[in-house]
Amino acid sequence: MNLLTPLMRGTALTAEFSEQQVIQGMLDFEAALARAQAACGVIPVAAAGPIVRACRAERIDADTLAESARAAGNLAIPLVKQLTAQVKADDPDAARYVHWSATSQDVIDTGMVLQLRAALNATRAHLARLVDTVASQASRYQQTVMPGRTWMQQALPVTWGLKLAGTLDALLRWQERLQQLLPRVLVVQFGGAAGTLASLRQDALPVASRLAQELALTLPDTPWHTQRDRMLEVAAWYAGIGGTLGKFAQDFALLMQTEVAEVSEPVTAGRGGSSTMPHKRNPVSCAAILTAMQRTPGLMATLYSSQLQQHERALGGWQAEWEVLPEIIMLVGHAMQETQHLVEGMQVCPRKMLENLEITHGLMMAESVTLALAAFVGKQEAHHLMEDLCHRAIKKRCSLLSVLVDEPRVTAHVDKSRLTALLDPTQATGSAEHFVQRVLSRYKERRHGTELSD
Amino acid sequence: MNLLTPLMRGTALTAEFSEQQVIQGMLDFEAALARAQAACGVIPVAAAGPIVRACRAERIDADTLAESARAAGNLAIPLVKQLTAQVKADDPDAARYVHWSATSQDVIDTGMVLQLRAALNATRAHLARLVDTVASQASRYQQTVMPGRTWMQQALPVTWGLKLAGTLDALLRWQERLQQLLPRVLVVQFGGAAGTLASLRQDALPVASRLAQELALTLPDTPWHTQRDRMLEVAAWYAGIGGTLGKFAQDFALLMQTEVAEVSEPVTAGRGGSSTMPHKRNPVSCAAILTAMQRTPGLMATLYSSQLQQHERALGGWQAEWEVLPEIIMLVGHAMQETQHLVEGMQVCPRKMLENLEITHGLMMAESVTLALAAFVGKQEAHHLMEDLCHRAIKKRCSLLSVLVDEPRVTAHVDKSRLTALLDPTQATGSAEHFVQRVLSRYKERRHGTELSD
Amino acid sequence: MNLLTPLMRGTALTAEFSEQQVIQGMLDFEAALARAQAACGVIPVAAAGPIVRACRAERIDADTLAESARAAGNLAIPLVKQLTAQVKADDPDAARYVHWSATSQDVIDTGMVLQLRAALNATRAHLARLVDTVASQASRYQQTVMPGRTWMQQALPVTWGLKLAGTLDALLRWQERLQQLLPRVLVVQFGGAAGTLASLRQDALPVASRLAQELALTLPDTPWHTQRDRMLEVAAWYAGIGGTLGKFAQDFALLMQTEVAEVSEPVTAGRGGSSTMPHKRNPVSCAAILTAMQRTPGLMATLYSSQLQQHERALGGWQAEWEVLPEIIMLVGHAMQETQHLVEGMQVCPRKMLENLEITHGLMMAESVTLALAAFVGKQEAHHLMEDLCHRAIKKRCSLLSVLVDEPRVTAHVDKSRLTALLDPTQATGSAEHFVQRVLSRYKERRHGTELSD
Amino acid sequence: MNLLTPLMRGTALTAEFSEQQVIQGMLDFEAALARAQAACGVIPVAAAGPIVRACRAERIDADTLAESARAAGNLAIPLVKQLTAQVKADDPDAARYVHWSATSQDVIDTGMVLQLRAALNATRAHLARLVDTVASQASRYQQTVMPGRTWMQQALPVTWGLKLAGTLDALLRWQERLQQLLPRVLVVQFGGAAGTLASLRQDALPVASRLAQELALTLPDTPWHTQRDRMLEVAAWYAGIGGTLGKFAQDFALLMQTEVAEVSEPVTAGRGGSSTMPHKRNPVSCAAILTAMQRTPGLMATLYSSQLQQHERALGGWQAEWEVLPEIIMLVGHAMQETQHLVEGMQVCPRKMLENLEITHGLMMAESVTLALAAFVGKQEAHHLMEDLCHRAIKKRCSLLSVLVDEPRVTAHVDKSRLTALLDPTQATGSAEHFVQRVLSRYKERRHGTELSD
Repeated sequence: MNLLTPLMRGTALTAEFSEQQVIQGMLDFEAALARAQAACGVIPVAAAGPIVRACRAERIDADTLAESARAAGNLAIPLVKQLTAQVKADDPDAARYVHWSATSQDVIDTGMVLQLRAALNATRAHLARLVDTVASQASRYQQTVMPGRTWMQQALPVTWGLKLAGTLDALLRWQERLQQLLPRVLVVQFGGAAGTLASLRQDALPVASRLAQELALTLPDTPWHTQRDRMLEVAAWYAGIGGTLGKFAQDFALLMQTEVAEVSEPVTAGRGGSSTMPHKRNPVSCAAILTAMQRTPGLMATLYSSQLQQHERALGGWQAEWEVLPEIIMLVGHAMQETQHLVEGMQVCPRKMLENLEITHGLMMAESVTLALAAFVGKQEAHHLMEDLCHRAIKKRCSLLSVLVDEPRVTAHVDKSRLTALLDPTQATGSAEHFVQRVLSRYKERRHGTELSD
Repeated sequence: MNLLTPLMRGTALTAEFSEQQVIQGMLDFEAALARAQAACGVIPVAAAGPIVRACRAERIDADTLAESARAAGNLAIPLVKQLTAQVKADDPDAARYVHWSATSQDVIDTGMVLQLRAALNATRAHLARLVDTVASQASRYQQTVMPGRTWMQQALPVTWGLKLAGTLDALLRWQERLQQLLPRVLVVQFGGAAGTLASLRQDALPVASRLAQELALTLPDTPWHTQRDRMLEVAAWYAGIGGTLGKFAQDFALLMQTEVAEVSEPVTAGRGGSSTMPHKRNPVSCAAILTAMQRTPGLMATLYSSQLQQHERALGGWQAEWEVLPEIIMLVGHAMQETQHLVEGMQVCPRKMLENLEITHGLMMAESVTLALAAFVGKQEAHHLMEDLCHRAIKKRCSLLSVLVDEPRVTAHVDKSRLTALLDPTQATGSAEHFVQRVLSRYKERRHGTELSD
Repeated sequence: MNLLTPLMRGTALTAEFSEQQVIQGMLDFEAALARAQAACGVIPVAAAGPIVRACRAERIDADTLAESARAAGNLAIPLVKQLTAQVKADDPDAARYVHWSATSQDVIDTGMVLQLRAALNATRAHLARLVDTVASQASRYQQTVMPGRTWMQQALPVTWGLKLAGTLDALLRWQERLQQLLPRVLVVQFGGAAGTLASLRQDALPVASRLAQELALTLPDTPWHTQRDRMLEVAAWYAGIGGTLGKFAQDFALLMQTEVAEVSEPVTAGRGGSSTMPHKRNPVSCAAILTAMQRTPGLMATLYSSQLQQHERALGGWQAEWEVLPEIIMLVGHAMQETQHLVEGMQVCPRKMLENLEITHGLMMAESVTLALAAFVGKQEAHHLMEDLCHRAIKKRCSLLSVLVDEPRVTAHVDKSRLTALLDPTQATGSAEHFVQRVLSRYKERRHGTELSD
Repeated sequence: MNLLTPLMRGTALTAEFSEQQVIQGMLDFEAALARAQAACGVIPVAAAGPIVRACRAERIDADTLAESARAAGNLAIPLVKQLTAQVKADDPDAARYVHWSATSQDVIDTGMVLQLRAALNATRAHLARLVDTVASQASRYQQTVMPGRTWMQQALPVTWGLKLAGTLDALLRWQERLQQLLPRVLVVQFGGAAGTLASLRQDALPVASRLAQELALTLPDTPWHTQRDRMLEVAAWYAGIGGTLGKFAQDFALLMQTEVAEVSEPVTAGRGGSSTMPHKRNPVSCAAILTAMQRTPGLMATLYSSQLQQHERALGGWQAEWEVLPEIIMLVGHAMQETQHLVEGMQVCPRKMLENLEITHGLMMAESVTLALAAFVGKQEAHHLMEDLCHRAIKKRCSLLSVLVDEPRVTAHVDKSRLTALLDPTQATGSAEHFVQRVLSRYKERRHGTELSD
């Protein structure tokens, strides 16, 4: 199904999980293991060189590897076989020490962690850019008034900046969570056949330490062959931020509807056109993001189920991770890139926002009048009175203001000029700007902190 | 992630969803459309030939197609572009009539239905073979006694044939369901831009009918661009039968545990060996089946969510189907093939089954003694008495029989020879054989019926 | 969380899964078992009466039952204990024969099937009513033109009747599927401790047959304690039809947006009002339906995972069904009732639909002009020309017609009066009415057939 | 379905989500709001007292509330109605100021956060107890040797302490994650109708600050009505730790199988007995934990899907949280309690573990011989030689030792006494004890740190 890869997961993150990278990740483990064991005197120093030299993905026959995995049940067994053959051709003695004392899952899991590290680093950088962009747009549009909507009905005015600030606020939390999870998940896997490193005896811990050091990974307290909470945590982070992006894309697509038309995707040649309707501009980026978000919840369900891995090495749960975890990352990576494109280049139409604010002929602003009246006649009475007047305006198809100024029970307390002010949506965004400022301050502080620490 | 394809979805079904087949499915639609429209006088008869001739997947540049899909949002738009260019090179006049009046989704959905038809037909044949194999083994092992287990504890004796018959019974139901769904799902998609075939005016229905006929698909009453219950139904069938296969594989893996050792996977060179433990025989087929079954539930969740497709053409829900539906089919197809391999070649160890029946020193058969006693002293009293005697046997680490023959409250009603018979597990399989026979009869009737109708 | 029951699952279906009904379902099994065993001479005829008399839910202490289930692991064990005590008080001899030879799962599964039967029958009737209502509305609105929308953008005109007919078409398929599944799922569960009915020896089949007859259920070929495809099938049917309802509700909520305002939920006192915005009319029914549909996909994932039940009786998978299966049914039952309310009383605003058709100043109808031109200049040239002209209309903010009549490359082939006709959306609904008629015909035939057979 | 509550979610956590607590959580918001607004001069000081006094759950008619929620679409609207009536009876003036400027979602979300705080605090304490217990058992059993199992086949020896340490290691990570998430999620919700607090104008922020202070919650930078990552994070934590517990329970149930019998659930009167098989001891706690873990993955899928909430207030996604989030917490809370019971009272049978280590007649230890030989003949040759010898031992049904001592290619390098030592599983647990010690050290350090800070 590679045909859909550019459309579904067409980012640099996908390259981190390419055949080449999967193989290289495992070979990096084998090379580091040889170096560590040579350094600790477990294998001859002379054996390390030939092994390390052979650990290059381009020397592995990927098709044979894939075919052999079928009978072996995983990629590590046939990989070690090919690697051993490569080393043997170079130095038969060294070939004895390939994969010494490790188990398949050590290779595969550590290889995966190395790929996750690359993916997480790329994602962190990408997220920082996205945060910058959203912050800049939130700042730019903090006074751009538009209808707020609840239950998919116009409610009260908000600003486009506030909507963006809500997304920014969430993204800042995702950055914080990423910082917290990184030290937990970037760990080596090294336990041998049953997680005891039995074959290394007294050399086990020194080799393990050195191996971790070679790979610049942390050495965890115990092997984690069937304790998969770290993998789950990475996936959950991606799926979670994907939810934040999906919420934004869904709102954007709703705002881009023909009848709403308050925003529009960036115009790019050949993008979003319809094959049969020349006037249409399809929300292609939103669709890409939403498609990804249709898929991550089910993939997460699989990973939660897969936590129940049997004994020292599992039957099904572990294997299910191999494709599902990268899939989540690639889908969300794509969504992140599309969101970047969308937020950077989006077209915003403040005029149409104002027009839409007029659709209800002032009814949207009824609450502010209600509250003003409530101070005089009590909340419930004000509510009932306004309900009647609103229905009158709807029935007569006239503006709420015209009804209000004709109603003595209103004008007894609030005069026309106050009513006009109360009904002006652009004066009714409450603390929206303040909220935007709060998030922007936090963003700036954190950005400053990051720059200092970088 | 193609490295894992042979291991995860290495069957002929996967080929049905190859790049080549995806493209050809769409081109088959375009060719049939040209033929139908020529036959109905909608396009010139002379235009059909060049279009039909160009509709060959090998003439499409798949990489360009995939890349262009990114901006277009789907594969049909760039495919039609390439196809039109191909036709134009051959016959510029004909090129005007490529994809006439159709919409992208008509092409993609009908192409998917054509692939589903191929997959379903292949699966039906495969399932028939599997049913034959399971039936044959159920018959062969209908008197092979083994411990039944509830709560993962030994309960009462069953037969290996009965366990197989349970699977057979379920597979026969899945065959029945397949027959019922086929006529519902093998339908053409043809609605044009908004599902009204507006551009074809009075020619719409004749063209639609002819198109369906050309493709040997049913013409549904309405276009179904956003009514996706048929796609869901296909996926649910695959995921459902996958559950039946997963249940079997899980039981098999449990029975193959070192301590249980009642069955074993077929011995095949290079399959199931461990890289570090020469004595091990890993349940590679069971693992493959269980891996697939870890993944289908989450994928189904996505398809259920994706039913909520907006208006006349959706944003996210439809696109999510493109990879998820084939993925389910390929995973379950793989599980089906592995199950075939497993059931065909499984090694069964009746001797070990009998040994395991002895583990509880007769405690497993306590119920039959309880029931025999109940006829004399009532159920509750019999139950309490036996509970005491069982604990006594456990405490003394001796056989239940030896305890029973020493207990006057037992021997007063049931003598030693009767007790010995009551405690013989091989005489205690109840209606197991009868149940097996019932399922086999149904299997034979249906098979006979199918042969007649074929 | 009973506070949310009226809002989330407030229909008669919920009553079918009340504590009372759960208990009565199990007691109905026990009563039928006693009758069947008395009839077959397995227990004394005199024992059946007292047992049957005691099998009334109101005589069971539900709180004690629930508490005792905790230690027992299921409801059947403490229920049998209470039932036995009740019978004993009446007739100590009869008490010996309570639950004779059955296992807990026989009681619980058959009780569940009895509840499912009640639920499915109620649902069938409800679905028939809903189908009638949707058919009647599809007929009524088959000429009500409105914008069709793809990618959440206006595309081409459709009719409200066609949208309803799409739903009707799907509902008719769900009716068909329901008819097909009913005979498969309404089966008794009776297998004893390990599914062999060992304790009944030669009486097993006669008792099983009679038991099924007493309960008016089918006797399946084998016990199905761990073959759960029938339960899955019921759940999948409910979740599936829920998807159809959710699609309708989502469309409805989109059409009810303040800016679209083409339809509206029925006006009911105290329903859909906002606590703070007197003018708002919230889509309360749509929200209820969509809430249910948020939840069913995940619940289905659980049931698919739960298919993998171990050996003769499972550890986790079976127990997960107990609440999840009824939950799906109750949620979808609620959605069905809300849909009935919605479709019956919906307010439709054809005037607003026509207004919305004008939003694009004729751009929406560009395709029909493109196709008309294509007959003269070829499809691609027509497409490019129209693309230019559409952009010109957008830039000038004028109607497409005014641009077209100024363009010689257009007027050379198509004159103004033809252009006016081509741009009239109400004349451009293609085969919409025909499609509606096709579905209505199928509906009428089937309805006629049902009436004859009832 | 309350009948199943004690069995499925029978812990104190369930009480935190009782009707009473749901109502009180919302009333605590209303009371705090009144106090905050009085303090800020937004409502009369005299109004606060009567409102606060009325905010007691026992004064609310829960049944009416539940019924009214159906039409209102949520619980807050009818609750405010009842509350206002209560206040009015006491002080008609004060009644005007009930729920001043808040929106339904402010009440419901903050109420939920208050319940989550109670639940999280209770869980934190419970988790600390569980960690203590697991640590104590890991320490106790760190030298208890048993077979390690991979692919559900015996692999190499491990210790029961190491298995417990793996669980402990994961639980310590969950504790760390809990500490990190708490400050993020314990925030007030306060935004008014569209998240701008418009009706409070310049009083908005002071009131919001004071409200947060009254409730001892954090004031977030923006209202989060449709940014639900915090709720997701709480659920994901529970589902995640549930996965760790489920893994342990699944292993435990596997080890408790009749044929394995290495551990057993605590013996408690009336718990785990079978209704028909007096000898059985069902793993009731494991079943309870596994049942919960069958359900959480699907529930998480719902919450991930529900992240896509529309605009300022959602239609379906938010409502789905109401029952799903508490359900996850209650299920996992139950699993945690059952795990506590299990780990505290589990019966461990070291003798049976040693017996099981003998099942393979030494084959399990083949790797250590292979590695010893590899030092002389190279890894691949050693591997192939041992493979042959293992098969010979299997064929002859004799011990591996007897085969090895007869093979000159072995004895040339390794003599019988070394072979005997190499084949002793109790000497082959590698770094198991060291790994246990590492985790226990971390546990102790953290525990010490916590005690200091408490």
